[in-house]
Amino acid sequence: MTDSNTNGALHGLRILDLTRVLAGPFCTMMLADMGAEVIKIEQPGKGDDTRHFAPFQNGESAYYMNLNRGKKGVTLDLKGQGREMFLELVKTADVVVENYRPGTMDKLGLGYETLKEINPGLVYAAVSGFGDTGPYRLRPGYDIIAQAMGGLMSTTGWPGGEPTRSGTAMGDVLAGLSVTIGLLAALRHRDRTGEGQKVDVALVDSVVASLEIITQIYLADGRVPERIGNRYESCYPYDSFAARDGSVVIAAANDKLWRLVCGAIDQPALADDERFDTNARRVQRHAEIKPLIEAWTRERGIDEIVEAMLAAGVPASPINTVDRLVDCPHIAGAREMFVDVEHPTAGKTKLTGAHIKLSATPARLRTAAPRLGEHNDSVFGGLLGLPPERLQALRSEGVI
Amino acid sequence: MTDSNTNGALHGLRILDLTRVLAGPFCTMMLADMGAEVIKIEQPGKGDDTRHFAPFQNGESAYYMNLNRGKKGVTLDLKGQGREMFLELVKTADVVVENYRPGTMDKLGLGYETLKEINPGLVYAAVSGFGDTGPYRLRPGYDIIAQAMGGLMSTTGWPGGEPTRSGTAMGDVLAGLSVTIGLLAALRHRDRTGEGQKVDVALVDSVVASLEIITQIYLADGRVPERIGNRYESCYPYDSFAARDGSVVIAAANDKLWRLVCGAIDQPALADDERFDTNARRVQRHAEIKPLIEAWTRERGIDEIVEAMLAAGVPASPINTVDRLVDCPHIAGAREMFVDVEHPTAGKTKLTGAHIKLSATPARLRTAAPRLGEHNDSVFGGLLGLPPERLQALRSEGVI
Repeated sequence: MTDSNTNGALHGLRILDLTRVLAGPFCTMMLADMGAEVIKIEQPGKGDDTRHFAPFQNGESAYYMNLNRGKKGVTLDLKGQGREMFLELVKTADVVVENYRPGTMDKLGLGYETLKEINPGLVYAAVSGFGDTGPYRLRPGYDIIAQAMGGLMSTTGWPGGEPTRSGTAMGDVLAGLSVTIGLLAALRHRDRTGEGQKVDVALVDSVVASLEIITQIYLADGRVPERIGNRYESCYPYDSFAARDGSVVIAAANDKLWRLVCGAIDQPALADDERFDTNARRVQRHAEIKPLIEAWTRERGIDEIVEAMLAAGVPASPINTVDRLVDCPHIAGAREMFVDVEHPTAGKTKLTGAHIKLSATPARLRTAAPRLGEHNDSVFGGLLGLPPERLQALRSEGVI
Repeated sequence: MTDSNTNGALHGLRILDLTRVLAGPFCTMMLADMGAEVIKIEQPGKGDDTRHFAPFQNGESAYYMNLNRGKKGVTLDLKGQGREMFLELVKTADVVVENYRPGTMDKLGLGYETLKEINPGLVYAAVSGFGDTGPYRLRPGYDIIAQAMGGLMSTTGWPGGEPTRSGTAMGDVLAGLSVTIGLLAALRHRDRTGEGQKVDVALVDSVVASLEIITQIYLADGRVPERIGNRYESCYPYDSFAARDGSVVIAAANDKLWRLVCGAIDQPALADDERFDTNARRVQRHAEIKPLIEAWTRERGIDEIVEAMLAAGVPASPINTVDRLVDCPHIAGAREMFVDVEHPTAGKTKLTGAHIKLSATPARLRTAAPRLGEHNDSVFGGLLGLPPERLQALRSEGVI
């Protein structure tokens, strides 16, 4: 393994990270896991809001520690002297990422037009609720707003029931992934041409992009997709089914799998039943098929059903709760999706592992999340060359 | 605008795309929108399964047309002569993307170990249900399996109700975004060192990574997160509320916003009520707060509520159905999230727009999705230099 490999695929990139809470920090977390130098800039004395979000471990926020591992942490008031110091840092950086509401960076005199004057190759990546153009650009954009505005809630949930939020902050996660793609693509263009640019990703757009076939149902057929619980518009049986001790998921997406299901539930004659012999007919008659399968699943435990279906070649799964994930020999074991990190005050913490697996330059959790201003001396002293007495003065003036 | 800009941020990259259905095609769709040359390789005579997925427009699948716009389409049987032709293409490519079950490419004699022998700089990106390592690696992995296995269903839905699938194929979308990040990062490493590598992304891991705070609640506090409908673990009021004509979302994530809500619903005294004066208390007493807000919202229409809240500075949104997205002056208008593309047989189709906005090299829908084998002559003739009579022979032998 060469030195560069130990350092990750993104070794050599410097990211100035002004992001707070979830969407932006999720992006820079992945960049740090892949070896970029991420300098997270927080408000002096206060820091990212999520430093105060539950749950806590020895007083340290697990929310913050998870999303900010591997980053350097500095404090900087972006007005006055702090603004000048930020501009000095920009000269040395490849990327600035921020998730303020559009216009905020301009008000600080730190908009893209200003920054590109001093660093034309800079990639400026912005995440916001509604994006940087259009009539709603200044609307505040929390995750639930994006899930509602972007159509996701309208298609999630049960017939006759309410529109339903995804249990995780999916709008934030989708936007965090999307801005990461945008900035890596923009860096490729910069490397080839020298030209930087602005990447503008909206939570709402990211949710809309995730709808895919749901949107096409309306665009091509003119039908507004309804909430249909756990089944799927395109195939059946592809749904959850009641077991003796909960429920399981079975996904028979084509005719071959349907025949295998019929065998597994001891109803081989069903496979030749003309009522169900095409996928289109099965989707139409889903309400007749579900009880036929549940007659078999209701008498059995979840693990037995999943084993029997998999043995028959049918895709099936338990519906895991989080405690089961953390115990899973595949997810927690082989895939290393939960990783222990030692934090100086919190102690040993278990964080979510890097989910993008790279064979030659594995992404990994390099260091614990920074304490507030932990890297002020090394960044402002080292990178900007400020002497200790100047740092002391900046500290007492509340600039850092 | 320079020529390279017209061509997109990823101009000059050649991607061999063996992916089918959703997760993989979503990745290569974004790459094509950003200017990469994507050569989609389909089974002769049959093609991607989604060519036969509803809804249709003049006999063409909207599902397929949306996910495969901007790509070149060739047909190739990957066994025998076709395998040799594929290997020739690999010599010219930057990236291979596939979403077969692990082991399938090895059986075809086209695994990463083989391909890297002939192109050491190749980035080989694989998307699968469970990933390429671990005890469950060979399990079939449809989207609903990943949503169940990865914990997302367990946290989505209503108290006392069933675990709930996200209304869109979220596991596929998350994996498609994630593998795109992985391959762009791997390309950066290759450009710097010459070394290619394998990118291994699992739908299940991608879902687990999306859980974030939900997982931390268990890891740090030992509490298994329950289904809590539309409200959120971290703040309140941040929920849906009944209106006269449906429901709306209001997101007051901190004390300042709570005061503004109290003013907007004509209950200014509530802002000083000690029962609700911290976020932690409001989360605890959410069941008391909801009816206080609904006493006001139930008497008003959705649009009136959203306008009043936004005017007061409170984040709020209608819960859009897909038809409202397509009419929205922000989403459909300014953000161009639905774009018309002319298809030779389907006619004018409306597809989902590129959601990652790049200022200097805008992503855009370049061409309609290919007809089956549309680019056989230009790719096999042009790129591999095969003469017309050889192409004719390959066609009659069913190789292409």
